[in-house]
Amino acid sequence: MFASLPKPEDNAMGNAPLEQNKIDLEVDEVIKLDREQKTIATKAGKKFFYEKVILATGSNPIMPPVKGLDKAGVYPILKEMGYLKELKEKLSKAKNAVIIGGGFIGIEFADEFSAIRGLKVSLVELLPHLLLNSFDPEFGQMVEEKIKAKGVNLVLGKKVVEAVGDKSVTGIKLDDGNVIPAALVVLGIGARPSSELAKQAGLTLGRGGGICVDEYMRTLDPAVFAIGDCAEKKDFFTRRDLPVMLASTATAEARVAGASLFQLKVVRENKGTIATYSTYVDGLVLGSAGLTEATAKKEGFEVVVGLAEVTSKHPANLPGTVKIKLKLIFSKQSGILMGGQVFGGLSAGEIINIIGMAIQKRVSATELETLQMATHPYLTAAPTQYPLVLAAQSAIGKL
Amino acid sequence: MFASLPKPEDNAMGNAPLEQNKIDLEVDEVIKLDREQKTIATKAGKKFFYEKVILATGSNPIMPPVKGLDKAGVYPILKEMGYLKELKEKLSKAKNAVIIGGGFIGIEFADEFSAIRGLKVSLVELLPHLLLNSFDPEFGQMVEEKIKAKGVNLVLGKKVVEAVGDKSVTGIKLDDGNVIPAALVVLGIGARPSSELAKQAGLTLGRGGGICVDEYMRTLDPAVFAIGDCAEKKDFFTRRDLPVMLASTATAEARVAGASLFQLKVVRENKGTIATYSTYVDGLVLGSAGLTEATAKKEGFEVVVGLAEVTSKHPANLPGTVKIKLKLIFSKQSGILMGGQVFGGLSAGEIINIIGMAIQKRVSATELETLQMATHPYLTAAPTQYPLVLAAQSAIGKL
Repeated sequence: MFASLPKPEDNAMGNAPLEQNKIDLEVDEVIKLDREQKTIATKAGKKFFYEKVILATGSNPIMPPVKGLDKAGVYPILKEMGYLKELKEKLSKAKNAVIIGGGFIGIEFADEFSAIRGLKVSLVELLPHLLLNSFDPEFGQMVEEKIKAKGVNLVLGKKVVEAVGDKSVTGIKLDDGNVIPAALVVLGIGARPSSELAKQAGLTLGRGGGICVDEYMRTLDPAVFAIGDCAEKKDFFTRRDLPVMLASTATAEARVAGASLFQLKVVRENKGTIATYSTYVDGLVLGSAGLTEATAKKEGFEVVVGLAEVTSKHPANLPGTVKIKLKLIFSKQSGILMGGQVFGGLSAGEIINIIGMAIQKRVSATELETLQMATHPYLTAAPTQYPLVLAAQSAIGKL
Repeated sequence: MFASLPKPEDNAMGNAPLEQNKIDLEVDEVIKLDREQKTIATKAGKKFFYEKVILATGSNPIMPPVKGLDKAGVYPILKEMGYLKELKEKLSKAKNAVIIGGGFIGIEFADEFSAIRGLKVSLVELLPHLLLNSFDPEFGQMVEEKIKAKGVNLVLGKKVVEAVGDKSVTGIKLDDGNVIPAALVVLGIGARPSSELAKQAGLTLGRGGGICVDEYMRTLDPAVFAIGDCAEKKDFFTRRDLPVMLASTATAEARVAGASLFQLKVVRENKGTIATYSTYVDGLVLGSAGLTEATAKKEGFEVVVGLAEVTSKHPANLPGTVKIKLKLIFSKQSGILMGGQVFGGLSAGEIINIIGMAIQKRVSATELETLQMATHPYLTAAPTQYPLVLAAQSAIGKL
């Protein structure tokens, strides 16, 4: 939020919630987990005994094998205050910035950067469209229009081959030979589980490098839990490794681990993780939950798609009305909802959570078609036009 | 929308959707349904044969047994263009207006009327709080503050005993003897099913006067369907008669009837009706789905309540952040969600639909506690503060 909030500190949570709950805080780096002794050792030379330990070591940004990315002025996404302050300081002097990666991080940086006067912003994505990991192309295209309208130089389908410059970066060279001038480069191409500590302690890692956990977030050692980006995720539909790293997933896992530390109070159904995202570009909202049409097909599912295009208020001549576009993906044989994508105004941020709830409860197209929902002229589409219902109807026509 | 949209015509749907679908439209009044001959007769003397007939005769406003309500200037809620134009015309000349009834209709009229310059608006409600049929008192109180802040003279816990005046109404007399001056009176105290035609045709009516229908919206005569306000509703939790009249319920019923006219294509689960509403007062939104705490207790359910108060964006210093207050009602033994109420910004209009979906799929508190949801700084509460999850947690603490 480089434009929206004046200082990085404005976005810091602080330690108050910990203090209120009488939790001791040690700011230090853990260098060893000894599962036999049940101790952890820190860089500052301290040692702590544990009864139960929860690994929440997060993730590290992926550094692609591209020449020159170690130059000054290249910023992978680190959530550290000093680092963010430096980036912000650098940004205030830069005349041009390049963002590498057209996922959520990339487009939100591009949106925020584009509001900074005098800064020329470029966004480079290897794939032919933005957001292709979470959205079908027709949704990414809507963001592309928005981003371009904000004056961002959008470069799709091009590979970055070098960060050029002396000590500091001065430009980004593409595989077509062009060099985009850049005093500052942001790298947003994803992250990998930070599971080195667990690996050294002999815990099992999944194929994607995440720490293997059971239904209750326990590793193979029942005294050691792992949650968040460092823990392995299993897909809700296929149980395959899922490279999803979301704060909302992490908090859900934290609640399970917290409730299961000393006793398993609740039998947890093995549901797996669904990816549920939302993003915001210049007043417009995109949300995705579950599988995209492309991902579902790639996984081998036979699917049928339902579409709806409606208005966010009714009648549509009410001030502030915007278009809502909704796509639902159903399993063809069973009619079960597998995924959804929405494009709309602010309300789309919660519409995607209705879809998320429906996926988690395995709602069918025929159930959605007769969904009982609240509608209101100022707040939603008309009752005859409610997008989830219309999209379900459109899918049923093809089932 | 007397202030928000300039003309009643702006809110009319028109006949285009019918014409597009090649549906013949006869504007006339049906005076007889002959189930033996399979005909309907109209006031204009026409007769139509039918294979199947769908009764969608709607509802009529309740006229309380109060003296003088037949005077000119008293307006029950009729959805007729000429009538609305007359009301709007009258309104432009009136100096004071009284709204009788503090439900959704009443508060939305009060909100719209209060934006009209030079009009003194009073709202009279018999019960001690606004919206008591759909919300627990603490939510109605929030609307009371809003309504009062807009300059509305709010009169709670008082009964209207007479509409005074000569031919035209000039004031509303209360049971404490006070008379509120009124050149215009709006009556919004509810409606009754308009089922006279069905009754005359020998069809069964429920205790509330609605036409009895089965799972597929068929009356006892399989050639006659009934949908919307004129059809009986059964409560989702108790299967008792439910006096709910919502456009969203009606459209869901219409879809079931439409799909079931000649063949029952889908086995429909007997779910019953849940009341899901949202309303909007001066930028703030209230939503309710399922049972309130008071209604659930009155029905004999042992319940436990979960509460959450969070902000609509995170961090809360982002511009446009408002408070969200959420209440969830769970069955104490089973932990199943029975109802929810939300107060917040525009996003609350869809938050209530997440709750509605959760009720319809019988989600438990422990499932909600680990709900996977999309969160975003501009669009939702923080992942650690997502209101449905927090409220579920707060309930689990009491289970």
